[in-house]
Amino acid sequence: MNLPSIDDLHDPVLAATLQGLLDGKTKPLGSLGRIEALAHRIGLILGTTTPRLQQPQLLVCAADHGLTAHGVSAYPSDVTWQMVENFLAGGAAVSVLARQHGLALTVVDCGVRHDFTPRPGLRVCKVAPGTADSLDGPAMSDALRDQAIHHGMALVRELPGNALLLGEMGIGNTSAASLLLARLGGIEVGDVTGAGTGLGADAVVRKIGVLRAVLQRHAEAREPLAALTAFGGFEIATLVGAVLQAAAERRVIVVDGFIASSAVLVASKLQPRVLQRCVFAHRSGERGHALMLAHLRAEPLLDLGLRLGEGSGAALAWPLLVSACAVLNEMASFESAGVATSDTAVSPERRESLEAHSRPAPL
Amino acid sequence: MNLPSIDDLHDPVLAATLQGLLDGKTKPLGSLGRIEALAHRIGLILGTTTPRLQQPQLLVCAADHGLTAHGVSAYPSDVTWQMVENFLAGGAAVSVLARQHGLALTVVDCGVRHDFTPRPGLRVCKVAPGTADSLDGPAMSDALRDQAIHHGMALVRELPGNALLLGEMGIGNTSAASLLLARLGGIEVGDVTGAGTGLGADAVVRKIGVLRAVLQRHAEAREPLAALTAFGGFEIATLVGAVLQAAAERRVIVVDGFIASSAVLVASKLQPRVLQRCVFAHRSGERGHALMLAHLRAEPLLDLGLRLGEGSGAALAWPLLVSACAVLNEMASFESAGVATSDTAVSPERRESLEAHSRPAPL
Repeated sequence: MNLPSIDDLHDPVLAATLQGLLDGKTKPLGSLGRIEALAHRIGLILGTTTPRLQQPQLLVCAADHGLTAHGVSAYPSDVTWQMVENFLAGGAAVSVLARQHGLALTVVDCGVRHDFTPRPGLRVCKVAPGTADSLDGPAMSDALRDQAIHHGMALVRELPGNALLLGEMGIGNTSAASLLLARLGGIEVGDVTGAGTGLGADAVVRKIGVLRAVLQRHAEAREPLAALTAFGGFEIATLVGAVLQAAAERRVIVVDGFIASSAVLVASKLQPRVLQRCVFAHRSGERGHALMLAHLRAEPLLDLGLRLGEGSGAALAWPLLVSACAVLNEMASFESAGVATSDTAVSPERRESLEAHSRPAPL
Repeated sequence: MNLPSIDDLHDPVLAATLQGLLDGKTKPLGSLGRIEALAHRIGLILGTTTPRLQQPQLLVCAADHGLTAHGVSAYPSDVTWQMVENFLAGGAAVSVLARQHGLALTVVDCGVRHDFTPRPGLRVCKVAPGTADSLDGPAMSDALRDQAIHHGMALVRELPGNALLLGEMGIGNTSAASLLLARLGGIEVGDVTGAGTGLGADAVVRKIGVLRAVLQRHAEAREPLAALTAFGGFEIATLVGAVLQAAAERRVIVVDGFIASSAVLVASKLQPRVLQRCVFAHRSGERGHALMLAHLRAEPLLDLGLRLGEGSGAALAWPLLVSACAVLNEMASFESAGVATSDTAVSPERRESLEAHSRPAPL
C-alpha cells in the first residue's frame, strides 16, 4: 500500500540552537531535566526555536475483537460500545481529562459491533463489526486492513493543529497488542501478556495459552502489515494510519499506553522515523508495556500505574508538553534577566567543573 | 514555641465512601493507578467526597546562607536576590509555570542579603540578611528561628485557598537540607550530599568535607528545632511554619524538591500528622532526595530529573492534582452511564478473580 513519506528530522543547526537557548535560561545547566529534553524534541519536530502547540487533537479509536470469544478479557464486548457512548456523553476518564486540558476529542468507530446514532464528536469509519477470531484465521483481510489504515490517514488530514494524542477503546485489545509485540519484537508472549482490564492470575495463564495458539496459527505472519492482518484490531490499524500521517505532517504525537504503543510499533516497523515525532506519555501498569517501551527505546514521562487506555495517560501528560514549550518561549536568559552565571561569577576552577557538567539526558 | 495543633485525618467512613466512589467510576478497578490514590488523599485532606482545589498558592521563600563562604555552591550568593528579581519580573521557570497553571505566586524575602524595592507579589519577612556561617556557630539564634517560623505561619493564615505549593530559592540551601537530613534522618552525610546547582565531582567531595565538619561542630543539635537553628536557613524555617499552619488548616500541601522536603522533614518531626496533608510532587535529581523521600515514606508523582527548586516541580505536578479531583467529581459511574460492569456481565468465576484484584496502591 501507499504510505506517506516521512522526512528525517536531523537538523544539527536547529538542535544546537535549541540547546543553546535552553542552556542560556536562568537555571543551572540541565536542571529542568526531562522537561528540557522534551522542549528540545518538540522544537525539532515543529522545526522552530519557538514551538507552540496548537489545537491538540485527542483521537480515540474504538473497535471489537473476535478473540474475546475465548475469554481473554474480564469484560464483555458490549462494554466497547457502551464506553463509546460514555466518551460522547462526557463521563469517561478521557472525556474529563480532555475537558480539563482543552483537548479536542474525536471518537472513531473503527469497527465496533454496534450501530451508533450519528452525533458531533463521533466519526464512523467502520470497516466491519469487529475482527474475526484470530484463532480461526486472520483477524481481518488485507483489504480491510488497508481500508482501516487509510481511514486513520484521512482522519488526521482533516484535523487541525500540530499535535495528536492517541487513544483507544476495545474490549480484548490488550491481546492484539501483546500478539503484535511478541511477533514484531521477538519477545516471548508470556512476558508481554497481562491482566488487561482485570483478569485474575488463573485467567491470565489461560489468556497466554490462547495467545500462544494464535501465534502458532499465524507463524508465517512475520512482517508488520501481515501481523496486523493476522492479529488485529481495526482500532490499531486505524491508529497506524493516523501515526504515519501525523508523522508525515510533523505533528507532535503523544503516545498513550500499551495499545497505542502497539500501533506506534507497527508504524515504526514500516517507517522508523515516526519515532522521532513521538512523545511517550507514560509507562503503563499493563504487563508488557515496559518491554514495549524498551523495544522502542522510549523513555516515558509519567509512571503512575495507569492501565486504562482511552488516551487517559496521554491527556495526563499533556500539560508537561505545554510546560516544555513555555520554558523555551517565556523564560528569561541570564543575560536578559541580569543574573550572574557561574561563568561570569565563579572561579576558573569552578567554571571548569560546571562546563564538564552533564547535559540534559536524552528524552 | 507555640505550634498549631493538627488533627488526625483518620476517618474510616469517609475513606470507605471515597474508595467506593472511585471503584464505581466507569473504568476497571484501580486502573487510574496513582491518580486514584491521589483523589482519595485529597478527599481525606479536604474532608469531602467532592474535593475542589481553590485558589492554589505557590509560596517561594528565599534567603541567603553564610556557609557559602566555604565554596559549597557553584553560584555566588548574589544569585539569590537576582533570581528573586527574576521571579517577580516573570522570567524564571517558576514564574512561567505558575502562569501556565493559574497559581498565585508569592515571593518571600525570608533573609536575603539584599534590600528589595517593595512591589506586588513580594513579601518582606526578613529576619536577618542571610544566616551566619554554621561552621563557626549556629546559623541563627533560637529567637530568629522562631521569628522565621512565625512568619511562615502568618503568611499562610493570610493567603486564601485550600492548597499550598512550596518553593524556595537560596544559594547554598542544598547544604542546609543535606545537614538536616543527615542529622534528623540519621543518614551518613556523604550519602545525601550532591551537586546542588552544578558542582563538579571534586567540589562535591569538598562540600561533603565542609558539611561533615558542620555536623561535628553541632554534635549536640539533635532535636528538630535545634538542628534548624544550627544549620539554617531562614527560608527553610519560614517554610516549616508555613507547612505547620497549612496542615492545621487542612490545606493540601504540594511539596517540591530536596529543600522543600527538608522543611517538611523538620515539620513532621515536630508534628507527624503534617505528612497526612502532603503530596510529594517529584523525585529530584539532587542526590539525597530519594533517601529523603524514603525516610518520609513518600512516593512522589513525577520523576523527571528536575533539580531546580523554586517550586518548579510542584507546579509541574499541579495538573495531576486537578485531574484527580476531576476524576472524582466528573466521571460517570457504571450505573449512571449504563455500562456493564464485570460484576453484572461476567461469569461467577471471573467475578471472583476481579474481586480479588488489587486495590489502588497507596500514594
